[in-house]
Amino acid sequence: MSFFPSSLEILIEKFASLPGIGQKSAQRLAFHILSLPDEEAQAFADAISTAKKTVHCCAVCQNLTDSEVCAICQSPRRDERVVCVVSDPKTVIAIERTHEYNGHYHVLHGVISPLNHVGPDDIKIKELVNRVADGHIEEVIMATNPDTEGETTAKYISRLLKPFGVKITRLAYGMPVGLSLEFADDATLMRALEGRQEIE
Amino acid sequence: MSFFPSSLEILIEKFASLPGIGQKSAQRLAFHILSLPDEEAQAFADAISTAKKTVHCCAVCQNLTDSEVCAICQSPRRDERVVCVVSDPKTVIAIERTHEYNGHYHVLHGVISPLNHVGPDDIKIKELVNRVADGHIEEVIMATNPDTEGETTAKYISRLLKPFGVKITRLAYGMPVGLSLEFADDATLMRALEGRQEIE
Repeated sequence: MSFFPSSLEILIEKFASLPGIGQKSAQRLAFHILSLPDEEAQAFADAISTAKKTVHCCAVCQNLTDSEVCAICQSPRRDERVVCVVSDPKTVIAIERTHEYNGHYHVLHGVISPLNHVGPDDIKIKELVNRVADGHIEEVIMATNPDTEGETTAKYISRLLKPFGVKITRLAYGMPVGLSLEFADDATLMRALEGRQEIE
Repeated sequence: MSFFPSSLEILIEKFASLPGIGQKSAQRLAFHILSLPDEEAQAFADAISTAKKTVHCCAVCQNLTDSEVCAICQSPRRDERVVCVVSDPKTVIAIERTHEYNGHYHVLHGVISPLNHVGPDDIKIKELVNRVADGHIEEVIMATNPDTEGETTAKYISRLLKPFGVKITRLAYGMPVGLSLEFADDATLMRALEGRQEIE
């Protein structure tokens, strides 16, 4: 039985469908929206539509961007011979924050995970292979998370790329195994970048 | 420095402005929105605008509604001589869920709280006084929260309504059903003792 006006029920339901938001929190958030001035509530709605409409994957590195090719791929100051392979856009941010890395990226948008029915074709591996096949790339740094799925993905990709003769490295274990890259502190990430090791 | 496309940054910022949502959660929610199919993301945006546009306060009881007068105030089966005064719409839901109450409501949208700069004029007390002054109401049940601010508000309102000669009651204090006496706080136990009832 619904006690709230239907449009409010719908809004609560939408919030409750977000990850990590339960029924009580969804109610609180919906009430908060109602308490906002009209223009602020509308700005929130617009932010959703606009982000969804304008943000897509960079044609080169698959990172999120609102232009055809992202700012990093376009920058003449970045070294296009080095590509750092990450599982998601948040890791790009984490690495950029160190100000230590000057190469390009490749965002996989996931890792190989048989348990979650994610196979090699479900993430952007093909696009990476095509980039490497183009011949400009000299080093590929595997920066997937240091957990089982991240390792498996790194190994799988490095085996695919071996025939192209590029140097393949991975982030050094400067960080505790099991920690998500997204939450690593800058100093740890920096050391891990500096000490990257070649994958045999 | 912003690493994400600006429309994504704006969306993250919007989520981060919600109560109880930090920067990391806001990122996670914004990414979730991007991962939704176009029509679902748009439905979310629409839910916000629609709720904000259609939901307002009932002209009579100030509860949230999408019509001029809410369903409870319109219902011929509800006893309009009894009005239960609550601080917010969520309390209406809680009381409705008991299926025990058949009267009307009055939603104050807050409680008197000098510390938070909320005075009697900032909540819907005037509207309640007007309803009582109309003369149809015989009993007003104060159902504000049993804390200092709720008590203060209840006392303030009951003093205002006294001159109209209506019966003014408040929810009984006592032990919550199912709570072990061992874990009851002193104030609750004291009230439960004071209000002890004869066993027939």
